[in-house]
Amino acid sequence: MAKITVIYAGDYGNTEKMAHAAKEGAQNIEGTEVVIKQAEEVTSEDFESSDGVILGTPVHMGGPDWRVKKMIDTVCAGLWMQNRMNGKVVGVFASGGGFGNGGGGVELTFVSMLNNFAELGMIIVPLPKNTENYEKGGLQWGPYGRSADESMAHTGVSDEALEVVKRHAANVTKVAARLKDQEIFTRG
Amino acid sequence: MAKITVIYAGDYGNTEKMAHAAKEGAQNIEGTEVVIKQAEEVTSEDFESSDGVILGTPVHMGGPDWRVKKMIDTVCAGLWMQNRMNGKVVGVFASGGGFGNGGGGVELTFVSMLNNFAELGMIIVPLPKNTENYEKGGLQWGPYGRSADESMAHTGVSDEALEVVKRHAANVTKVAARLKDQEIFTRG
Amino acid sequence: MAKITVIYAGDYGNTEKMAHAAKEGAQNIEGTEVVIKQAEEVTSEDFESSDGVILGTPVHMGGPDWRVKKMIDTVCAGLWMQNRMNGKVVGVFASGGGFGNGGGGVELTFVSMLNNFAELGMIIVPLPKNTENYEKGGLQWGPYGRSADESMAHTGVSDEALEVVKRHAANVTKVAARLKDQEIFTRG
Amino acid sequence: MAKITVIYAGDYGNTEKMAHAAKEGAQNIEGTEVVIKQAEEVTSEDFESSDGVILGTPVHMGGPDWRVKKMIDTVCAGLWMQNRMNGKVVGVFASGGGFGNGGGGVELTFVSMLNNFAELGMIIVPLPKNTENYEKGGLQWGPYGRSADESMAHTGVSDEALEVVKRHAANVTKVAARLKDQEIFTRG
Repeated sequence: MAKITVIYAGDYGNTEKMAHAAKEGAQNIEGTEVVIKQAEEVTSEDFESSDGVILGTPVHMGGPDWRVKKMIDTVCAGLWMQNRMNGKVVGVFASGGGFGNGGGGVELTFVSMLNNFAELGMIIVPLPKNTENYEKGGLQWGPYGRSADESMAHTGVSDEALEVVKRHAANVTKVAARLKDQEIFTRG
Repeated sequence: MAKITVIYAGDYGNTEKMAHAAKEGAQNIEGTEVVIKQAEEVTSEDFESSDGVILGTPVHMGGPDWRVKKMIDTVCAGLWMQNRMNGKVVGVFASGGGFGNGGGGVELTFVSMLNNFAELGMIIVPLPKNTENYEKGGLQWGPYGRSADESMAHTGVSDEALEVVKRHAANVTKVAARLKDQEIFTRG
Repeated sequence: MAKITVIYAGDYGNTEKMAHAAKEGAQNIEGTEVVIKQAEEVTSEDFESSDGVILGTPVHMGGPDWRVKKMIDTVCAGLWMQNRMNGKVVGVFASGGGFGNGGGGVELTFVSMLNNFAELGMIIVPLPKNTENYEKGGLQWGPYGRSADESMAHTGVSDEALEVVKRHAANVTKVAARLKDQEIFTRG
Repeated sequence: MAKITVIYAGDYGNTEKMAHAAKEGAQNIEGTEVVIKQAEEVTSEDFESSDGVILGTPVHMGGPDWRVKKMIDTVCAGLWMQNRMNGKVVGVFASGGGFGNGGGGVELTFVSMLNNFAELGMIIVPLPKNTENYEKGGLQWGPYGRSADESMAHTGVSDEALEVVKRHAANVTKVAARLKDQEIFTRG
């Protein structure tokens, strides 16, 4: 049985919806305990007690929401210093308007978040191309829920994108359960 | 009067079409000399004799075409060693199927190419959001021409995307003309 | 005559020292007006009234300080929406402990900041390899001041690194002065 | 028992030395079968028959060697199309002169290679900070062996860096063995 913490920041409800889909997806793996929190509430203990973390953000100017970065600087940096998260598992997701059809900065948003998790020694679960509904909400690093069309007219995150998030969260949970207590790496 | 070299690699004609649009856009700035070459033909002299370079590639597995990378390793590395390109100007563009709506790796493709040009000491021209047709072919780092819809069905690069390339090439040319012979940096 | 705004965030004085070196370097170009501000104090007006921006940050977990990201989300996002910064000029710098010899996340820190500036339509000035003291404080995207040795023992940013910052700031200022009022792009 | 394929490209023997250290590190996990190949020799079958892949490259102009990219475009792209690698495990390493102290492009080199592996649906193993000798050869995404000092004088990859590679390869092998036959994702 794995414990998963779903963390998100968000303003308009799209990322929040995706976070709740992630919670549901993790719970679909029997015996999983899931906690869901906003980035501003998360503590070191939330991270340390987890076997896996799923982090979501809106894309703002090609990077994660500043509240996600604040959590990284103020909570994750201490965990890094003490090597507390080595070998735990992580997945990410994002929402965004995506003006144009190129994702509007979502890739570097994902890589920015994962750079932190790589520093934490965490094992990264990507999103395979043959995941159902990938074409409506997938990117190699994780689910991407568009909340607007290519001209920035609001649409909200689609049901298909939420399905992709559920699947991704289930994948992360399965890997976390499998690697739990394996002592791949030494923790501080 | 500036000299611009348009360089591209490509298999199916989409990147080539965009390269020809780039050539046309650069020529729209009066007095510009434009040379267009495939990545495999380009020499050090092509780079050194240019005031600006415009480089385009298809997106392959989230990075530039290997022939672009070969040119970087075999031609650009020598120019870097001798500091030959400092203060010249660069812009980039890409085509891609973009499975899903997140650009399928185009952002890191752009950043990979620009990492080389930053090493060469070249000044980078991005693509402003209010460029006409941006929603059909724009990304912050340069024009992105989708050649397929979100489900990977072939569409070819749109006329709107080609217009974005023309505009981007004209922008790069204007900056190159303006900075030509300014000796911002010392060259080797 | 160009106006340059130097912006920074920082805790231990290393980034602040680099910011003051940037100010000095910009002022070395005759007729330049330089304003220096912390990220938390900066307003839209500071950006809009500038011809060039120089932004510095400590590296925290492979990304910029969260106060830099907060400024991006709360100030830059509005400027992006209104296309206010198109064609202005930008340079970046960073300080960091850099545990190991690989920079500890400084590259992605630079790219994260520049992703925002590319979205703002700003022209990016890199740091050429033949800049004096590059080996003590240089990276392709901008000056990098190490504040610790490879084992994380504190050293503070070196005088050589500060010299690199001065040179970089002078370069950014020269490009900004040259491109000022050129109307390369249309502003909103 | 896991099968691991170590792949590398390289000119001066540094990356090759690291590749042999990776082989040795993987073999230190009992029952592991290890194959070592140059990027130009690798086939689809080499990838498909592996439980884990370890890929190393020299850093060239801020990206992987063009022969690595050629392998990605010509071998990995087909595996991606058919979803053959989902759920397998990957680790990366690099060598480089690293002019300056910022890694000279190694971070984006790692991210470029990992972008391909994320597209392939492979699970990514980072390098924890408390790995022995990390300060002599570590970076969050994988081992980084400096082959020159900050002024580019040749030193060759250090013994400490080779030890880091061995440890990293052992880590990747342990994760690959643990996840083998788990059917986390569906393969094509």
